[in-house]
Amino acid sequence: MITIVVGTNRNDATSEIIAQHYYNILQSKQVDSEIVYLKDLPQDFVVSALYENEGKNPVFNAIREKVLNAEKIIFIVPEYNGSFPGVLKAFIDGMPYPNAFMDKKIALVGLSAGIQGGALALSHLSDIFSYLNAHVLGYKVKLIQIEKNMQNEQITNKFYLQLIDNQIEKFISF
Amino acid sequence: MITIVVGTNRNDATSEIIAQHYYNILQSKQVDSEIVYLKDLPQDFVVSALYENEGKNPVFNAIREKVLNAEKIIFIVPEYNGSFPGVLKAFIDGMPYPNAFMDKKIALVGLSAGIQGGALALSHLSDIFSYLNAHVLGYKVKLIQIEKNMQNEQITNKFYLQLIDNQIEKFISF
Amino acid sequence: MITIVVGTNRNDATSEIIAQHYYNILQSKQVDSEIVYLKDLPQDFVVSALYENEGKNPVFNAIREKVLNAEKIIFIVPEYNGSFPGVLKAFIDGMPYPNAFMDKKIALVGLSAGIQGGALALSHLSDIFSYLNAHVLGYKVKLIQIEKNMQNEQITNKFYLQLIDNQIEKFISF
Amino acid sequence: MITIVVGTNRNDATSEIIAQHYYNILQSKQVDSEIVYLKDLPQDFVVSALYENEGKNPVFNAIREKVLNAEKIIFIVPEYNGSFPGVLKAFIDGMPYPNAFMDKKIALVGLSAGIQGGALALSHLSDIFSYLNAHVLGYKVKLIQIEKNMQNEQITNKFYLQLIDNQIEKFISF
Repeated sequence: MITIVVGTNRNDATSEIIAQHYYNILQSKQVDSEIVYLKDLPQDFVVSALYENEGKNPVFNAIREKVLNAEKIIFIVPEYNGSFPGVLKAFIDGMPYPNAFMDKKIALVGLSAGIQGGALALSHLSDIFSYLNAHVLGYKVKLIQIEKNMQNEQITNKFYLQLIDNQIEKFISF
Repeated sequence: MITIVVGTNRNDATSEIIAQHYYNILQSKQVDSEIVYLKDLPQDFVVSALYENEGKNPVFNAIREKVLNAEKIIFIVPEYNGSFPGVLKAFIDGMPYPNAFMDKKIALVGLSAGIQGGALALSHLSDIFSYLNAHVLGYKVKLIQIEKNMQNEQITNKFYLQLIDNQIEKFISF
Repeated sequence: MITIVVGTNRNDATSEIIAQHYYNILQSKQVDSEIVYLKDLPQDFVVSALYENEGKNPVFNAIREKVLNAEKIIFIVPEYNGSFPGVLKAFIDGMPYPNAFMDKKIALVGLSAGIQGGALALSHLSDIFSYLNAHVLGYKVKLIQIEKNMQNEQITNKFYLQLIDNQIEKFISF
Repeated sequence: MITIVVGTNRNDATSEIIAQHYYNILQSKQVDSEIVYLKDLPQDFVVSALYENEGKNPVFNAIREKVLNAEKIIFIVPEYNGSFPGVLKAFIDGMPYPNAFMDKKIALVGLSAGIQGGALALSHLSDIFSYLNAHVLGYKVKLIQIEKNMQNEQITNKFYLQLIDNQIEKFISF
């Protein structure tokens, strides 16, 4: 069982398509998976679900439980301002500390309109997950100029499809 | 005129005290400054103030304007999960792209209960501000074990006071 | 079989003692290991052993082979100028590209006289090993103020001993 | 006066051409500059010029002096294994500690055959220079797929030429 997190709360068709692609490939390899959408978080979660209010917001809790119960997680990370979306980090900040990610296995996928493919986003996230004692798969997928490599809600770049397949294979046995 | 941003929306007495300390020192050097508190952001700003709703939330806009109009900004950054608070990045994600921080001068202050002092938080933020073509003062202040070095809402560690004074001097002439 | 690399060519008693400590603990757990010392590299290896001269220097080759043949490697990394020693990166640059570290398992140990414990050094190395498709154990050991926590060539800080033991346990089953 | 450092000791035509291009543009703007080549370092400098032998190697010292005396330095950084060349860090490690780069102004230029343009290399170097209290210009130039964008020892990509010109303008007034 692998949990796939769409790492933005924006209505971001592209990240969702990539997540769905991972889901489909996993299914074709007989691996169960589930997609978690940060856009399902309560609109006020950066206040209502954190800190002194911790645990009191049932919508937040339901999403949090899915990630808490996962052993392997794939994060789909669109590049925002040269790093990951703030809302993804705010979600991580809302998880129970310090053991929420302890010894979990993580795979990272970056995507960008530009040419960086979230390289720094994935580097920053790797630091954070290492701090939380999770293990990040070395093989990261960076999908640059993503819009140019998609058509009709499908990835058209065969090299990207191969990278993703390689990553999934490695992650299954990680 | 220097703008000081308290980089968390939590009721975080410590970050606010550090911000006030910077304010006081700047005032003693005849430099005007203003403190911006992320806790004043609307509770739903990660949805209401971003993306398709951009510019429609007057409370968010008022805070955003203060940062937009600043030429020099000091960020007070408590360490959350080995990096900066997600809410700080979400705030940056809500600024107009790509010119909100162009050529601005930035100074960074990290603080932590533990021994890292936000070292990685400040590294990650430096990447983000460089991506946005802002210039980060090389001299960063990292205040480790901050609670042990404060008393009665004052910084008691003389070395910390000296680091802060050095940074402010350098930032004024940066 | 685990290979331990002393990540400096300096006569650095401390890094060597830490490497020997890892060796001893591994032995007590019935795991074979071997220590590789970068100080054994030829003095001119940044020229003679790299690039157009690749493979022609037998002393360099012997050390290179040990790392090439390893499946699991622990790097002992003293902090130099806020990152890893340049000579360690130069050694990595002298390895065959791009497959020298592919799918290897890596554990990282930082040490410093100061209070950073090589936090950024280990972050930078994690980026490099991820680029080379190696997998870095999330659990990293950062030994700050190392001289104050050693006596008679032994680590005296019990918390450090526990961190190291935890890391080794996790690495054996990684 | 601006010092330009070719950040590799390899016979790397491309980095040298980029350095020469910066030199020419600076000259056209009536700014004196000088190119320092790491390939002029003594072959054994990672031993002979460092640590206990510090200061005894006159060839190393001559190069070191040029960098020590500079107030503004541009580093041309080819990407090696996802970061900067080890030899560049080894050179930095051979500079007097801790004041060699204090308050100097630094501009960073990355180049790569691949699509990363040294993004992580420049991030890592920024951490190092910040640690050493130097100030890195926020505006960094990343030249991806450099061979495809050069012909007859000239940069042919007009966008690259514009980026470089922008950076130089900003650096002159930094």
